[in-house]
Amino acid sequence: MPVITSRRNPVIKAAAGLSASAGSRREKRAFLCEGARLCKDAALSGLELRACFYTAQAREKYGAYLAPVKKASQEAYEIAPEVAALLSATKAPQGVFCVCGWPQGLAGGDAPLSARRLLVLEHIQDPGNLGTILRTAEALGGFGVYLLGSCCDPLSPKALRASMGAVFRLKIAQEPSPQGLAERLAQAGFSTWAAVPDRQARRVTEMDFSQGRHSLFIGNEGSGLTPETAGLCKGKLTIPMLGRAESLNAAAAATVLMWEMARGGER
Amino acid sequence: MPVITSRRNPVIKAAAGLSASAGSRREKRAFLCEGARLCKDAALSGLELRACFYTAQAREKYGAYLAPVKKASQEAYEIAPEVAALLSATKAPQGVFCVCGWPQGLAGGDAPLSARRLLVLEHIQDPGNLGTILRTAEALGGFGVYLLGSCCDPLSPKALRASMGAVFRLKIAQEPSPQGLAERLAQAGFSTWAAVPDRQARRVTEMDFSQGRHSLFIGNEGSGLTPETAGLCKGKLTIPMLGRAESLNAAAAATVLMWEMARGGER
Repeated sequence: MPVITSRRNPVIKAAAGLSASAGSRREKRAFLCEGARLCKDAALSGLELRACFYTAQAREKYGAYLAPVKKASQEAYEIAPEVAALLSATKAPQGVFCVCGWPQGLAGGDAPLSARRLLVLEHIQDPGNLGTILRTAEALGGFGVYLLGSCCDPLSPKALRASMGAVFRLKIAQEPSPQGLAERLAQAGFSTWAAVPDRQARRVTEMDFSQGRHSLFIGNEGSGLTPETAGLCKGKLTIPMLGRAESLNAAAAATVLMWEMARGGER
Repeated sequence: MPVITSRRNPVIKAAAGLSASAGSRREKRAFLCEGARLCKDAALSGLELRACFYTAQAREKYGAYLAPVKKASQEAYEIAPEVAALLSATKAPQGVFCVCGWPQGLAGGDAPLSARRLLVLEHIQDPGNLGTILRTAEALGGFGVYLLGSCCDPLSPKALRASMGAVFRLKIAQEPSPQGLAERLAQAGFSTWAAVPDRQARRVTEMDFSQGRHSLFIGNEGSGLTPETAGLCKGKLTIPMLGRAESLNAAAAATVLMWEMARGGER
């Protein structure tokens, strides 16, 4: 197999573009996935693998991870270490990459509505936070996810890494309008709860989520839900705390609320 | 006031050394704190502020944050932007720093024993994880913390940033020996629970933490608690999950367990 040694190779340039730009990902309906475990996860998740890239060293070291990736990929390329450094978003690249087609769950529409419970994330700005929240949603089980407004891209390298591939498997939809979404959730029989740092709101510990279908709206790291979106929800939920409540970070607050929602369910 | 413009100024070199090296922090019993809010938190937390540094731009922009910092500091220096860039661990520095003496809570000994509940962290390697867990422990309230074995340094720039200053206010002790600690916890009347990803362990949802004093042992991100430490605990706790349990990250698992422990308490 010929080894790609030039950073200007058109296949490499296209892959690097997918890593760098959300616009490029949208236009091509594809994204770049990095790392032996994440690429294997992508292959096993049934994503379309358009191409994979690996260094000679990675072929030796990550053979067991690479096998399903190579099998699922339409094209496979060996690349030089300096090409891996170009494609990588990390300082110490493993040297394994694949170009994947858009996950079906992200195609839009109302696929998340088939889930038992829903998480609605509004204007989450930090890709690490978004990835962590998606990873937790998958781990706790049963969640579909809507990304409302200007959430950062779950297919960026940093979000993918933090999500540990949860984005490949969750039902996720991007949704521009809180009004439209709130109406469709109500029609589908979901209660709608706005997470707020407000001591007057309903305490999450007093809720019983074991019956019915529920959705949880979580807002931006700094400013919370927009008043418009919070106002569209049927109720407000808060986390009662002894300590410095304002000090819980966005991902930790989301973890507690999702856990409380899942905790009452079947386990 | 004279402006420090040289990166080789001895005061600056000493401050940069505190940022770069855990050894230097231990030797000097001091650490470098960065950012307007974190420095203000340090001043208000009653830490010894040996010196503060700020750029002219920061003086204009963060005056309200700087006032208590300057008041509490033994020495104050204005610094040039290139000096701020040297001291900073971030790409876009705010230009506010202070050198603080070791927090009293970190002095060692058994100060955490006065807390209502305890978190024991063993061999946590990632400073972002450590900081996030400390931040959550403070937010949920009532926790003292032991850092067991080779935990990363809670006073490193990354851990400080993730902790949002929780390390200034929590009672934290570093502890070399799991055996010695387990004995002292038992003597002080704390039950000891090892967090494990094991479906045979006691489900945390079946526990009642509302009575008595309890401690929670959480291990390394990749490999969990050492068998020695887990074996010293009186029981094993796990998080029952519908989803991909193995996929919960260390900070999220710690959040769920701490939340369950705090949830049963007085609120």
